[in-house]
Amino acid sequence: MPNPTAAMLVIGDEILSGRTRDANMHYLAQELCKVGIDLCEVRIVSDKREAIIAATKALAGAYDSLFTSGGIGPTHDDITAECIAAAFDMPIGIRDDARAILQAHYNAQGSELNEARLRMARIPDGATLIENPVSAAPGFTLQNVHVMAGVPSVFQAMVASVLPTLTGGAPLLSQTIRIDRGEGDIAGPLSTLAEQYPALSIGSYPFIRNGAYGANIVIRGSDGTQVDAAVQSLRELFPE
Amino acid sequence: MPNPTAAMLVIGDEILSGRTRDANMHYLAQELCKVGIDLCEVRIVSDKREAIIAATKALAGAYDSLFTSGGIGPTHDDITAECIAAAFDMPIGIRDDARAILQAHYNAQGSELNEARLRMARIPDGATLIENPVSAAPGFTLQNVHVMAGVPSVFQAMVASVLPTLTGGAPLLSQTIRIDRGEGDIAGPLSTLAEQYPALSIGSYPFIRNGAYGANIVIRGSDGTQVDAAVQSLRELFPE
Repeated sequence: MPNPTAAMLVIGDEILSGRTRDANMHYLAQELCKVGIDLCEVRIVSDKREAIIAATKALAGAYDSLFTSGGIGPTHDDITAECIAAAFDMPIGIRDDARAILQAHYNAQGSELNEARLRMARIPDGATLIENPVSAAPGFTLQNVHVMAGVPSVFQAMVASVLPTLTGGAPLLSQTIRIDRGEGDIAGPLSTLAEQYPALSIGSYPFIRNGAYGANIVIRGSDGTQVDAAVQSLRELFPE
Repeated sequence: MPNPTAAMLVIGDEILSGRTRDANMHYLAQELCKVGIDLCEVRIVSDKREAIIAATKALAGAYDSLFTSGGIGPTHDDITAECIAAAFDMPIGIRDDARAILQAHYNAQGSELNEARLRMARIPDGATLIENPVSAAPGFTLQNVHVMAGVPSVFQAMVASVLPTLTGGAPLLSQTIRIDRGEGDIAGPLSTLAEQYPALSIGSYPFIRNGAYGANIVIRGSDGTQVDAAVQSLRELFPE
């Protein structure tokens, strides 16, 4: 049975303008790989309503699950929650359980749960909350979409809350062999090897280090015996 | 006149599996910002023919230009060039000028221009070559799509070759003000400020540092006088 599929939607002008380098995509990719969920596509869009809604519909429709990051804070540019609701034609409003979580958090801090902060209790109808042990304001899951914060520490905590609720597949086994030769020298035999092991994914990732060419050959698959056999064949083709 | 728009397509299983953290997107975002081209959307897809073709069609159709990274080397998993050709229904074949560049490069190295390396001379009909001063094998521009390598040093060199050929817009001016208060305290006044300056983009990027909440407020626009005025207003709202 093929593994469940997933996509990610990163929301935020600050990534597209080059101001911030996204860290959440790389983190999620690694976590999904561990539990056997295949991350198939990532999109990064700006804080624009139409862009967020269109990407949500496309990705939630095409993959088993969608993870979003960014745009769920209290400021005017935080519009993710209402866009996700709109993508599924669901109403959105302040929800009592989310409000209670925020109220307890700001009471403990001695801060006021003002109008801006109350925006973070706006949850689409039918969603379940995602726990946020870092800064209280919850994310939510609506159908197959998991809506999470953009701040990396909060995003990571929410991923830890969500992943145990999902059904994974066979974890992808992966071995990497570094070959200190140009890809052009490797390509022919590697192509033959890929044909011999159609169930494996064999990728070549070239690098240039101190002016010398090389490539990391990554062999991936869910059958460990096959991965080992392909690694063995590759080592015989290119002895160190 | 609004700035030209752009999208980026990152091609590679190694990014989606979490093995490699993409560096090219962040680099391109910064370079485009400098020349006044608005990066509006990024997609990351795997080394799959249908995924690459579909994303190319969607992004090249929606934005003024599209930049791709990855998948133009000599190995079996390098299928970007043929996918771009397919997206535009153009034939692709080995081209004399590209072959001559490779031949000269490998002659100088004392390496053979073998069948695998010759794949890198496959260029869609109607494309112009993008110079690669690092490792010779050229990228290409087909209509509004600029096809470049995934290795960061090569990608950056190709971006430097391409950018001078494009028409930019007004560079986006940006000022960042750090406010050491929770976003919930800032959100109300910030929303009013955003309404006062509809031509500016005002974003709030929260952080948690040593357990304390704060936010970087980024004010962006092409009119420096307006950006300065909004910064001044913000400083008055939240004196240090």
